[in-house]
Amino acid sequence: MAKISVLRYGHRIVRDERVTSHCCLVARAFGAEEIIVEGFEDEALKLTISKMNESWGSGFKLKFTESWKKTVKEYKKKGYFIVHCTMYGMPIQKEVKKIRKKGKILIIIGSQKVEKEVYYASDANISITTQPHSEVAALAITLHMLFEGKELEKKFEKARIKIIPQEKGKKVIELKK
Amino acid sequence: MAKISVLRYGHRIVRDERVTSHCCLVARAFGAEEIIVEGFEDEALKLTISKMNESWGSGFKLKFTESWKKTVKEYKKKGYFIVHCTMYGMPIQKEVKKIRKKGKILIIIGSQKVEKEVYYASDANISITTQPHSEVAALAITLHMLFEGKELEKKFEKARIKIIPQEKGKKVIELKK
Repeated sequence: MAKISVLRYGHRIVRDERVTSHCCLVARAFGAEEIIVEGFEDEALKLTISKMNESWGSGFKLKFTESWKKTVKEYKKKGYFIVHCTMYGMPIQKEVKKIRKKGKILIIIGSQKVEKEVYYASDANISITTQPHSEVAALAITLHMLFEGKELEKKFEKARIKIIPQEKGKKVIELKK
Repeated sequence: MAKISVLRYGHRIVRDERVTSHCCLVARAFGAEEIIVEGFEDEALKLTISKMNESWGSGFKLKFTESWKKTVKEYKKKGYFIVHCTMYGMPIQKEVKKIRKKGKILIIIGSQKVEKEVYYASDANISITTQPHSEVAALAITLHMLFEGKELEKKFEKARIKIIPQEKGKKVIELKK
């Protein structure tokens, strides 16, 4: 399976806090290795992710960058294929097989209006429907389609707690480390 | 294809505004017929959805309810199968085939902590991974799996504008009504 990183473009104080937090949790839960947030270095977000890793299993990394351009350049050098999720791009259902073959993928998701340069710096611009919706949903569907549903079964290492699926109600067990 | 409605549980002023808005847009873009928001009657949200329908194609409905219980009762009477998305539920990948056969489905998605009663009022509690993430992602994946990817090709009636997918950049055309 491909190694996937996510780049969150343009994280703004207050306005994007909850949505960026959802993006981070989705990246983690759906099998990405890390998320790199462009914008302000959000201490609350760091705390959320570190608590999440401590309870539910570790391995996922949160990083910050001052410049998406620098990050894209760096990841291109490391051999990553750059995929930008945008409603203006080519349909994911037509592109996903090709992208899945790449060993290392960096997925860019926007928040505020994305600069034109992002479209040209990316190796592929893909749309998850051509309707306006949500970068959280776009990221989830992209990861789900790239991993072909296998991400739904992902095991998390070094978890302290774990859910035992129930038809009704909740069951959470403590794990011995 | 099943007729799908979405019920957004516990929408709160300020805190949930952006995330509920993402839920509404995802419900619309991924082929649900309507979303019913429980909580405060959000005028900004009404405006967002009505503008969206006017530009990108109509048909999607936004409603409000004071009580999820009343809505679930009403939809059960109308023959809807009630599906609650929760990380504590049974894996979606095991349940989706069975659920897909139902003609009418009401999907409940939470925001704040969901009351125990929701688990018992639902016909199925399903998890989209057993990790904490986002109701926006949970809704997108649920609709995507129920519609088997066909929602990605959904046509919207009476749209004023439409995207022509591009490898680089953006192309939006005006449609004659």
